[in-house]
Amino acid sequence: MTATAPVSAAGSRDLPHPAREEIRLEDVLHALSEPMRLGIVRELAAGAGELSCSDFELPVTKSTTTHHFRVLREAGLIWQLYRGTAKMNGLRGDDLEELFPGLLDSVLTAADRQAARRGQE
Amino acid sequence: MTATAPVSAAGSRDLPHPAREEIRLEDVLHALSEPMRLGIVRELAAGAGELSCSDFELPVTKSTTTHHFRVLREAGLIWQLYRGTAKMNGLRGDDLEELFPGLLDSVLTAADRQAARRGQE
Repeated sequence: MTATAPVSAAGSRDLPHPAREEIRLEDVLHALSEPMRLGIVRELAAGAGELSCSDFELPVTKSTTTHHFRVLREAGLIWQLYRGTAKMNGLRGDDLEELFPGLLDSVLTAADRQAARRGQE
Repeated sequence: MTATAPVSAAGSRDLPHPAREEIRLEDVLHALSEPMRLGIVRELAAGAGELSCSDFELPVTKSTTTHHFRVLREAGLIWQLYRGTAKMNGLRGDDLEELFPGLLDSVLTAADRQAARRGQE
């Protein structure tokens, strides 16, 4: 985690994250294999910093959105923390680059290429 | 497909493959997110050519093995064809490199690094 702000509440608002060395390649690939989750990661990668869950306009229920963010967090792709009532999200780019150099970039590039190809169809 | 040998029988032995432009990133990532399938791809990448299904010693039933190879084929990661009674498999490395440059290499490198790290634990 690169975020350093204090978590605003403990207990039910705990958001467990895998340590860097616990991140498994298979979990990362699985998390990225779902189009909506891949879209979230692309959006976080394109932005400069962190985004709240409500910054994402996903065409699914709130509970499905929460599920997708949890899968990304538990796979080690993103960190999440509460700032007041907002749940903020950021990419764990440094952790992933240290563990799997070039992997995230190549997936993001592949996603860009695929999106461009589909736009041309 | 780079394989050019004739398929030995039609009908029930058809093995449908997606055309290069039909290969979807999400399907590729999903196929690679299962440890046994990732292992099959690593073995095919390490070898020079093609391998028959029975060259792989997987600790699962034959039907599970068949399932994993089918997922890989339908995702566009491998080609499969019959030579006599043997089902042969090869990586669609050129197709993947053309569609998603660097992606397969970065996944294979990540898998190598993870395997090395686990070996040290």
